[in-house]
Amino acid sequence: MGSQVGEQTIAFDNPPTIIGHGNIVGPKEGDGLLKEYFDKILEDTLWGEESWEKAESKILNAAINSAIDNANIAKNDIRYIFAGDLLNQLTASTFAIRDFKKPFFGLYGACSTMGESLILASMAVEGGFANYCVAATSSHFCGAEKQFRYPLEFGNQRPLTATYTVTGSGAVVVGNTGIGPKVTHVTPGKIVDLGVKDAMNMGAAMAPAAADTIIAHFKDTGRSAVDYDLIATGDLGMIGKKLTIELVGKAGYDLSDNYTDCGIEIFDNEKQDTHAGGSGCGCSAVTLTGYILKEMAKGTFNRILFIPTGALLSPSSSFQGESIPGIAHAVVIENSQE
Amino acid sequence: MGSQVGEQTIAFDNPPTIIGHGNIVGPKEGDGLLKEYFDKILEDTLWGEESWEKAESKILNAAINSAIDNANIAKNDIRYIFAGDLLNQLTASTFAIRDFKKPFFGLYGACSTMGESLILASMAVEGGFANYCVAATSSHFCGAEKQFRYPLEFGNQRPLTATYTVTGSGAVVVGNTGIGPKVTHVTPGKIVDLGVKDAMNMGAAMAPAAADTIIAHFKDTGRSAVDYDLIATGDLGMIGKKLTIELVGKAGYDLSDNYTDCGIEIFDNEKQDTHAGGSGCGCSAVTLTGYILKEMAKGTFNRILFIPTGALLSPSSSFQGESIPGIAHAVVIENSQE
Repeated sequence: MGSQVGEQTIAFDNPPTIIGHGNIVGPKEGDGLLKEYFDKILEDTLWGEESWEKAESKILNAAINSAIDNANIAKNDIRYIFAGDLLNQLTASTFAIRDFKKPFFGLYGACSTMGESLILASMAVEGGFANYCVAATSSHFCGAEKQFRYPLEFGNQRPLTATYTVTGSGAVVVGNTGIGPKVTHVTPGKIVDLGVKDAMNMGAAMAPAAADTIIAHFKDTGRSAVDYDLIATGDLGMIGKKLTIELVGKAGYDLSDNYTDCGIEIFDNEKQDTHAGGSGCGCSAVTLTGYILKEMAKGTFNRILFIPTGALLSPSSSFQGESIPGIAHAVVIENSQE
Repeated sequence: MGSQVGEQTIAFDNPPTIIGHGNIVGPKEGDGLLKEYFDKILEDTLWGEESWEKAESKILNAAINSAIDNANIAKNDIRYIFAGDLLNQLTASTFAIRDFKKPFFGLYGACSTMGESLILASMAVEGGFANYCVAATSSHFCGAEKQFRYPLEFGNQRPLTATYTVTGSGAVVVGNTGIGPKVTHVTPGKIVDLGVKDAMNMGAAMAPAAADTIIAHFKDTGRSAVDYDLIATGDLGMIGKKLTIELVGKAGYDLSDNYTDCGIEIFDNEKQDTHAGGSGCGCSAVTLTGYILKEMAKGTFNRILFIPTGALLSPSSSFQGESIPGIAHAVVIENSQE
């Protein structure tokens, strides 16, 4: 059973274990700052498929298979799959997961989906509803640009506040037995909307949600930044990170020492022309399953707070004058003390 | 704790209770066969808003508020909200739920979302992660036509195999204490795709998934149709219902006595020109929270099997030649024996 802690947080009495993880990224990500951490780097963004959408499905499918292999269990041991992506009607996930023939929970949390899927998979395992679940997500730069912004062929100039959608997928297997770091606490996030309307500045739109969830997590648990070796938001980029430090600081918590953002870690922004940083569901997913979990295995970090962040807009909602609500879900991952 | 039963099903040891429910429908639904069961019938599909999308958000927001009022708890007692809709990036849900200031899990299961949200809310409550959760969904005929088919102004002729998207929203409050029927078992469904490509015949595309989940539920639990007072799929309509009876029949289970489809119950198809029946996330949600739960309260039904069905396509996936995968999630609801 989980213990309810404060207004939003769950502390797991029998923390589920991340027994396997896998990821795949595109060529640009494979040329970035985390290139040594990725399991597979593609040579091109289509990977032999006819469309970016189909390529994204293939990438997500492969990342899930890679996580199951890494967990050293049989595909058939998986009971439920929790996944989502940015494409309309989650078609990247649908066509990726069709072949697994396992019950599927489709999730949409924009770029916070790795947090949402990890939370629900952990709840399913800790509640006794499943022994092994997959949590996964993906994004694709070309598909996301086409759907949310401009066709690539148009060659639009991107403002410096814009982030660059990561092409890639990350997946984990969460189990009730096995070896690996544990999911000890989760803090599902609220929708927070301070009225930002600039879809080319997602960092600013999402920062209030990131700050809200971090502050809620600290209040619920009585912890602060010093209790973590690393605090990593999802894909706020340079501008969103600065705002998050400021907003969390106003609540009396200092993030200046051990806080980073996956969107800053992944690209070499100056050399790679990625402006404010990386974004997309895949950004936090490949940074978690690449960099963070691999450094945890080495003991560089023993207790981390992972907070994927999402901007809950659609092109229609922006056309209709709506602001951009944000959401962020927090997950605590700890190396076992045994 | 939940007990895992067979390959897909969960039997809840402490079944969560549906302590409140609410719904709102549009004028056409309010003129249909279930008109006496709905909590509120709108006079027009815009409800004072400037766009169908904003109207759908308002409808979903009102349905959730109505369910919370019906549950006789305070808004602040709700811990988590599970919801989704058909609009790209779930904007109906996002803008509906923004004001609640409660953690939100965005779900996409196409028209199976009432099943997905009920399952996850029940798992959250039974696992001890929350005392009260909301499960909800919505759809809007005009918004769905615009997004998935043709603009209404185009006045296209709809084939007789097509269903009619319900304008409406249904919401329930699931709690660990309180009075109401209980969620005793859930059977989350797999993605099933037999290769149907006709987006104007969703019933045929979804029927194999409905049959797969019903058969899995029967196999897992050792039950059959006679164990239920009512079996109701989500929105298969006339054609999908016929196919489901046939497919489930081939597995040796007879559905001929007590099986209906919410898409057949809701409209007077001949008089209302709704062709194969009703569809959309709202179809099963308002039929559950209107007709089914109200008849359960009267004792007409004491144990029901509710199986919302979803077609996991997008306009892009159809344009790219993909078939239409289906999914269906089953939920058993029983009147308490006390």
